[in-house]
Amino acid sequence: MSRGLFIAFEGIDGSGKSTHARRIARETGALFTFEPGDSELGVQLRELLLHSKVALTPETEALLMLSDRSHHVASTIAPTLAQGRAVIADRYLASTISYQGYGRGVNLDLLWRATDLAVGDVRPDLTIVFDLPVEVAARRRAPRDDDRFERSGPQFQERVRRGLLEMADGNPHYTVIDASGNHDHVAAQLTAALSAVGLM
Amino acid sequence: MSRGLFIAFEGIDGSGKSTHARRIARETGALFTFEPGDSELGVQLRELLLHSKVALTPETEALLMLSDRSHHVASTIAPTLAQGRAVIADRYLASTISYQGYGRGVNLDLLWRATDLAVGDVRPDLTIVFDLPVEVAARRRAPRDDDRFERSGPQFQERVRRGLLEMADGNPHYTVIDASGNHDHVAAQLTAALSAVGLM
Repeated sequence: MSRGLFIAFEGIDGSGKSTHARRIARETGALFTFEPGDSELGVQLRELLLHSKVALTPETEALLMLSDRSHHVASTIAPTLAQGRAVIADRYLASTISYQGYGRGVNLDLLWRATDLAVGDVRPDLTIVFDLPVEVAARRRAPRDDDRFERSGPQFQERVRRGLLEMADGNPHYTVIDASGNHDHVAAQLTAALSAVGLM
Repeated sequence: MSRGLFIAFEGIDGSGKSTHARRIARETGALFTFEPGDSELGVQLRELLLHSKVALTPETEALLMLSDRSHHVASTIAPTLAQGRAVIADRYLASTISYQGYGRGVNLDLLWRATDLAVGDVRPDLTIVFDLPVEVAARRRAPRDDDRFERSGPQFQERVRRGLLEMADGNPHYTVIDASGNHDHVAAQLTAALSAVGLM
């Protein structure tokens, strides 16, 4: 049986990626999964990461994210792909590099190597970056979503956005879509990107 | 003010290192601290690591250990050293390399790089390896200490022991002491090693 397709959806909060990721998974029969937190261990780590009162350095934050990802890969993503089923991940590798690396200033080279430890060869076939201006995303976000990362302000979100675009630049495993338009405009771009890899 | 001395005590469980580490800290006024778990975040991670029913891969285990260490360094070890006070750590870097690397087979190069991310330049001035045969250590361990690592069996403990000796071999920042003898014999070797770096 051939390995399932692995697609990661990335973007700053308010980009609409989670809504579209769930929809695409429903339409294609792919497994929808998210980070941080979509496992028994992950629930506990997500709580520590997003809502803990303990002050965490960017390096600790990165290592906790990678712990969650490592477990998520071993317990969910790799076994699903091995069964030949597609996986749509709402956040993956590029989130750690863009948020903790570009956003918080953690050494990018060390971060990539720690990522190797976390995921081994379980890499997305395609990473779709939902790109839009930070101020448009801010207007879209629900106030209840106000966690540790969203409290970090527009300059932080701007660095994350730039990081995602830099990673995508010239990389054939990335596609950037314009997420500033309406639902149908985004959906059309997604269908084109996913058709190109054979998911739709 | 000059930075305090940083001494790490390492060894397989049952080596007697924790007893001596606490005693030396008491006698010298150094801060005694331990891993995993000696912080608010650490308590929660220790619980996940040692007693969780969730199956963890060696890589996830390593990343959780490094998350705990990263937080421990930032919240406790680095600030104490900066005040000019000595720190005695019951387990540090060498535990991750020996347990998850040599013991569980995680890629050593990736593990060292992830360690760089976790601790930066906060490295021990001296790492003391309490060395003794695995079967002697097993007889000394209290049955109540039977956690995830101690359930891993003598072959695992043997790999950990060998890892510690390999790391120490030819490294001027390591001292190996014979921990198979009685308390006074171990104490005398420790006094000699700590006098050499100016702690006693």
